[in-house]
Amino acid sequence: MSMIAISPILDKQGNQPIYFQLYKYIRSQIEAGLLVEGVQLPAIRQLALHLGVSKNTIESAYQQLLSEGYIDSKQRGGYRVLPLEELVWPITEPDGTDNYMPATVTPKAPLSNVRYDFQYGDMDIERFPHEAWKSCLVDAVSRRSSDVLGYGHFQGDVELREEIARYVFESRGVHCKPEQIVVCAGTQHSVSMLCQILSLRERRIGMEEPGYSGVKTVLRNHGCSISPIKLEHDGIHVEGLYTEEVQVAYVTPSHQFPVGMVLPIHKRTRLLQWAIDCDGLLLEDDYDSEFRYYGQPVPALKALDTAEKVIYMGTLSKSFLPAARLSYLVLPSRLMASVQSKLASYSQPVSPIIQKAVTLFMKRGHFARHIRKMKRIYHGKHKAVTVAIQRWMGEFVEVIGDRSGLHLLLDVKGRDSAELLQLAERVDCRVYSPVHHWNNADDCPPGYIMIGFGGMEEAQLEDGIRRLSEAWFGCKS
Amino acid sequence: MSMIAISPILDKQGNQPIYFQLYKYIRSQIEAGLLVEGVQLPAIRQLALHLGVSKNTIESAYQQLLSEGYIDSKQRGGYRVLPLEELVWPITEPDGTDNYMPATVTPKAPLSNVRYDFQYGDMDIERFPHEAWKSCLVDAVSRRSSDVLGYGHFQGDVELREEIARYVFESRGVHCKPEQIVVCAGTQHSVSMLCQILSLRERRIGMEEPGYSGVKTVLRNHGCSISPIKLEHDGIHVEGLYTEEVQVAYVTPSHQFPVGMVLPIHKRTRLLQWAIDCDGLLLEDDYDSEFRYYGQPVPALKALDTAEKVIYMGTLSKSFLPAARLSYLVLPSRLMASVQSKLASYSQPVSPIIQKAVTLFMKRGHFARHIRKMKRIYHGKHKAVTVAIQRWMGEFVEVIGDRSGLHLLLDVKGRDSAELLQLAERVDCRVYSPVHHWNNADDCPPGYIMIGFGGMEEAQLEDGIRRLSEAWFGCKS
Repeated sequence: MSMIAISPILDKQGNQPIYFQLYKYIRSQIEAGLLVEGVQLPAIRQLALHLGVSKNTIESAYQQLLSEGYIDSKQRGGYRVLPLEELVWPITEPDGTDNYMPATVTPKAPLSNVRYDFQYGDMDIERFPHEAWKSCLVDAVSRRSSDVLGYGHFQGDVELREEIARYVFESRGVHCKPEQIVVCAGTQHSVSMLCQILSLRERRIGMEEPGYSGVKTVLRNHGCSISPIKLEHDGIHVEGLYTEEVQVAYVTPSHQFPVGMVLPIHKRTRLLQWAIDCDGLLLEDDYDSEFRYYGQPVPALKALDTAEKVIYMGTLSKSFLPAARLSYLVLPSRLMASVQSKLASYSQPVSPIIQKAVTLFMKRGHFARHIRKMKRIYHGKHKAVTVAIQRWMGEFVEVIGDRSGLHLLLDVKGRDSAELLQLAERVDCRVYSPVHHWNNADDCPPGYIMIGFGGMEEAQLEDGIRRLSEAWFGCKS
Repeated sequence: MSMIAISPILDKQGNQPIYFQLYKYIRSQIEAGLLVEGVQLPAIRQLALHLGVSKNTIESAYQQLLSEGYIDSKQRGGYRVLPLEELVWPITEPDGTDNYMPATVTPKAPLSNVRYDFQYGDMDIERFPHEAWKSCLVDAVSRRSSDVLGYGHFQGDVELREEIARYVFESRGVHCKPEQIVVCAGTQHSVSMLCQILSLRERRIGMEEPGYSGVKTVLRNHGCSISPIKLEHDGIHVEGLYTEEVQVAYVTPSHQFPVGMVLPIHKRTRLLQWAIDCDGLLLEDDYDSEFRYYGQPVPALKALDTAEKVIYMGTLSKSFLPAARLSYLVLPSRLMASVQSKLASYSQPVSPIIQKAVTLFMKRGHFARHIRKMKRIYHGKHKAVTVAIQRWMGEFVEVIGDRSGLHLLLDVKGRDSAELLQLAERVDCRVYSPVHHWNNADDCPPGYIMIGFGGMEEAQLEDGIRRLSEAWFGCKS
């Protein structure tokens, strides 16, 4: 195990945060092959002393490298460089200022007499900027022009598409023009539109196993068959796409759903290489990438996609408001000529009033502020729930996929989810099994429980986890 | 040709309008076989004298029988009983008060330097109740409850579905429970959902030829093939459904799109009989039935559907506001058990904010008032445009399908639509060819022009038609 010296030239008066300069330096060393697979990075304390910066700065830089899959931290206290696939395309350079934006969440079913509902998708109603949103909606509906009364442009309001183009570039490194964007009415509608305009029916679609059941339903109801591609500890087994001989794959690289891992950089480049090798198409669902609790968000797969093999799918359901029912596609420009006339034969399904209100909300800066705020708040909730799990459940459970997003999985060892759900109801808690996201229910580990934490307060999360622990393991506090 | 005496007992102090009592009386005589095919009804003046009522009363009753296909008026000044298929099901009795509600329209593309745009789907912005709608929207967004923040119920807001159930019963004679209603994001989305939940892909769908191209697109993109069924002078050639051996048919009985005829009662019963004979399913698109200019609206096909063979499709785009992007399906209750779980795996695509606002708009009576008002207004526009056509174009054109709805077809004899469109632009008018609604463009008569009149004022319609006449026929006023 070799130790190396890291000696970047840091501009302490510059525009870019120090941690970001350090992260970029180390990343460039890795990409240039100067830091190779297996090399161990200096310990945090040691490098902080060496560079004359705080430990936090070093930790932030390492966390960013970690989230992006350049290094791992398997060994206690140490960070090691991971294998790097040859980068086939130049990576878009993020500009280093605080542009990467985080975001919000989403409700589903009302509670009955359940006190704590750990439902995935519930939103934080208290923290939502109701007044700002209301004023945007009022301003939108007060325009008496045909753009908020009629059917609207078939691809969506052009100003909204400009805002979305700006947002996906600044937050996710995705370069696109408004002409490539199609506004849709939620992720399932996005997928349905893709099936319709790309004639995906009767085709086999590669999909992570487990994977989002809502998308599987839509694909199957369009006559597609699903080829399940197994997950490894760090995400999709890319070789499975070759052996299954699919030409289209639906993937969740930023935060695998439901298991939760972030696809490392070397696997991202392999995915893109697969698409080039097999003339494949990647459908990237980037549903909650705004919320990462360590380092900055990982750039989207689409940001690396110079060969135009990726269709990017975004949604406002997690980052803003489920009730907007607004999602979007970013289509590769090479496809636009062939799909334009198909798109034009569809009416836009999202109300132009909602579209205009969201446009105003983005233009006035509310959206960016809201995401920044929610990133802090969800970070706090994430911490509260993981600390409570550690405190109350300790050795009884393993936590899976807890680095990002608004849910995590618990593996309650040796137990069965049906029993756990029932026991939870006795202490007025509701938890969920993720089993429907597996093609074959038997493949889902029996003790898996899905914990959504976006809709509850920190104290509720703490108390809820305590109650669950009591119900499941009989521990009294 | 036999003449008959009509001697109903009319209750002049009763709740039901006299014309309605007379209409019901004659209808019952026809249904009972007492007035048979070919019998000529008394002249209006004669019957008015005989019964001691106004000529208007007789005319209203005859118009209603005419719209519902019990009689026709082919011979100048005379009304003749039409053949009546055996009624297989009892007809739902409308209650005779002024419940049948008419409705509004819809915009699409903005104008450039075109002065008069005869686009179908343009809405009357001036007459829209902006303040009432805005206040409903504000009240909806001011609720901070999860029902206007979250995803909402997958079939749509339950209060909205209650309002829709009441509306389709009162205005269209359709009995249904809110549980049978599915809120969708426009007619194309309605059709797409049907394809998905009923697995229509790879099936052949019977469709009137010509028929609405927007629906054809969706069906084809779901992998359905279209079997064109020819139109006769009074609507779909029902026997074509037998010979084509389809099991699903999409029909527009209330107002054939784009040709404009209203399907008479004997053809409606034959359609329903076909569905029973062939275990068929009828998709009834009732897109603009609110606007009939003679007599009351004809009850929907679904209102006769005791065998549960009809899926009813409604939309608010014509009757209220295109920007609501809100349509709905009424599914037969026999199908609910089998489609419920498929429906439940979809998120609702229409924003719960919009749904709640529309609910309030209906609950507060704005919707009924608006439709009543727009029925008058569109009647005036319809009159203005037909009078202008008669005055300025006279013998040069034939008007097709002018009894109902928000558009009509002109057959400009001996001319070609491409030339007519160009000539129209020279006088700052824009008109459209309906050719894309034909499967085979060659089948569309070359001189057909589609005239949408919902979005223009009466004076504009008058002036626009005058200009068109000048451009096309060189007539100077």
